[in-house]
Amino acid sequence: MRTIELRGKSVVLIDQTRLPHELKLVRCKSADEIVRAIKTMRIRGAPALGVAAAMALAITALRSRARNRETLLRELERAANKIRLTRPTAINPFVSLERVLSLAHATSGDAKGVRKAIVNEARRIADEDVETNRRIGKHGASLLTDGSVVLTHCNTGALACVDYGTALGVIRAAQDQGKKISVLATETRPLLQGARLTAWELMRDDIPVTLITDNMVGYCLSKKLVDAVIVGADRILSDGHLINKIGTYVLAVLAKHHSIPFYSVAPTSTFDLNSKVEDEVIEERKAEEVTTIGGRRIAPRGVPVLNPAFDITPPKLVSAFVTEKGIIWPPFEKNIRETIGDRQHFQNMIIGVLSASKNSKNNFTGCN
Amino acid sequence: MRTIELRGKSVVLIDQTRLPHELKLVRCKSADEIVRAIKTMRIRGAPALGVAAAMALAITALRSRARNRETLLRELERAANKIRLTRPTAINPFVSLERVLSLAHATSGDAKGVRKAIVNEARRIADEDVETNRRIGKHGASLLTDGSVVLTHCNTGALACVDYGTALGVIRAAQDQGKKISVLATETRPLLQGARLTAWELMRDDIPVTLITDNMVGYCLSKKLVDAVIVGADRILSDGHLINKIGTYVLAVLAKHHSIPFYSVAPTSTFDLNSKVEDEVIEERKAEEVTTIGGRRIAPRGVPVLNPAFDITPPKLVSAFVTEKGIIWPPFEKNIRETIGDRQHFQNMIIGVLSASKNSKNNFTGCN
Repeated sequence: MRTIELRGKSVVLIDQTRLPHELKLVRCKSADEIVRAIKTMRIRGAPALGVAAAMALAITALRSRARNRETLLRELERAANKIRLTRPTAINPFVSLERVLSLAHATSGDAKGVRKAIVNEARRIADEDVETNRRIGKHGASLLTDGSVVLTHCNTGALACVDYGTALGVIRAAQDQGKKISVLATETRPLLQGARLTAWELMRDDIPVTLITDNMVGYCLSKKLVDAVIVGADRILSDGHLINKIGTYVLAVLAKHHSIPFYSVAPTSTFDLNSKVEDEVIEERKAEEVTTIGGRRIAPRGVPVLNPAFDITPPKLVSAFVTEKGIIWPPFEKNIRETIGDRQHFQNMIIGVLSASKNSKNNFTGCN
Repeated sequence: MRTIELRGKSVVLIDQTRLPHELKLVRCKSADEIVRAIKTMRIRGAPALGVAAAMALAITALRSRARNRETLLRELERAANKIRLTRPTAINPFVSLERVLSLAHATSGDAKGVRKAIVNEARRIADEDVETNRRIGKHGASLLTDGSVVLTHCNTGALACVDYGTALGVIRAAQDQGKKISVLATETRPLLQGARLTAWELMRDDIPVTLITDNMVGYCLSKKLVDAVIVGADRILSDGHLINKIGTYVLAVLAKHHSIPFYSVAPTSTFDLNSKVEDEVIEERKAEEVTTIGGRRIAPRGVPVLNPAFDITPPKLVSAFVTEKGIIWPPFEKNIRETIGDRQHFQNMIIGVLSASKNSKNNFTGCN
């Protein structure tokens, strides 16, 4: 099955907090329930969050009792605002919300017509995600050769998307081309997406995977065990700054130190051509994610904690970005705009929404 | 109390696997029980392991029924051999075993006389450890200024020694000099010595500590939150190669990338002037340390794991070594020999023992 699906008037998703122990599905019947699923990391991964946002609007529309267009549009805006406040860093939900809302506003006719347009658009966004990842995989697979060992971080697989994956999609595509690829996966503290999700996905696909703790990456690179580092992206700026899961920057510095290529893999919807690096909001999550593991306390009660969910990797440490439109090499300033350029108009349209969301940053930083 | 003490005919030590939940003491009545305590990490930290090794011989002597010198010496050699096979990387236990055994062999007279000499020597080694750390602290404190924020790794405190600590000793000494120091402590997977032990020690001493996961170090350095990185050492080679807890190398590369000083703090007994970096044995520990936390499984059953306990940091990434004889700056090849030179003769004597131990490296690598 897909990681997230629209079924009837509900969204059904794999509860990623239960993996690898249990493959459990969760049914969300409202945007509020999707908000909770996102906040508690039942669903995570930038592309999957983009789809979840669109589907939240779809089920809002499907369950709405609005008799007229305007009431429905207001309900949709309210739902979108709640989604925007869940997690600030990944750009994908902001992009899909804007895409669905723009379509809703542009659709003439009554509530029924708008409802239908929205549901179709949410389904299209999900289908595009799968298709996009397949195209990304094909481009990226050219970077790997038979026998390559890839170091990856967090989970960028089917579970981070609707299916197939971004960085793991590249590995799957290389494997499909007959290349034997093996993977070193970092466990990715605090929430252990590497240990729980990436290891689980790759073992199911019979792709050889070896699990390491996050601090073993230096050892592995110094022992020449790694041919390439491949990660995903939560947001990529026009100059090539990469905002991704905490620990990505460590891998990028080490890869540069060891002259190993460092690739970030993401759909073009992850590029944010309007923001500047100094404006970026890094989500700070609650202390318990660090001081407990699976409900078990591992640190003294009351110890102060930092828990940034993401870090920022400067463009000079990135070898290339892999997208569905091809591989983007440096100079990034020029090549990102050339590749993503046709989204510029759309991005300009949504800049206001993004700014509004960023201004609410205090909502995210006080949760410790 | 001290981390490890000789009480009557037993060794009493703090069970470090129970911290921070419980301060529990363990009484070891034989060298075999100390071997188990070391293997299960009830006691850990290079200097503490050195003292544990000496005390294992002391209680072997105290409980021996040997009537003559030769029988006692044979029992001591057997006990020493078991200790040598516990953990291969930290040099300190090898050095103390050799120190105690040499004295035993050099002591004339009957079993009673040898027994007394050994017990006194073990007590002396423990007392010296405390005194050495105080001297290390005074030298190292000069590297920190009022308000310094220190990033540290693993546990290098009182719990890694008999008391006071090496890297944490430097922080304590600076604090004692009236400088306000605060600490960022990495949790240090897989065994979480940073989260469990360092945070606990520093909170008890009212030294401000903030806990982070191992992959947050890049974020902290890029945000300019850190003035110096200070770690301990399990073994330092004559050319300045530093063998220390897994993850140390990551910190060293990042510190260099951010032009932040990186110091390793250790007694001169940690220096191994005879081994070469290519001969180093990195202990590989069992997979369950990575795949479970506190008995709770965090990864799919059967996932392959790497679990090296240490990594090797090349001298070019080390700013200085802090010892009880002063701070050793580059060029290390020259300055280490000049500072530690008077141990050269002793080291030559023990090279045979070290080689013998290293040849048994297969004992350590097959435990996954």
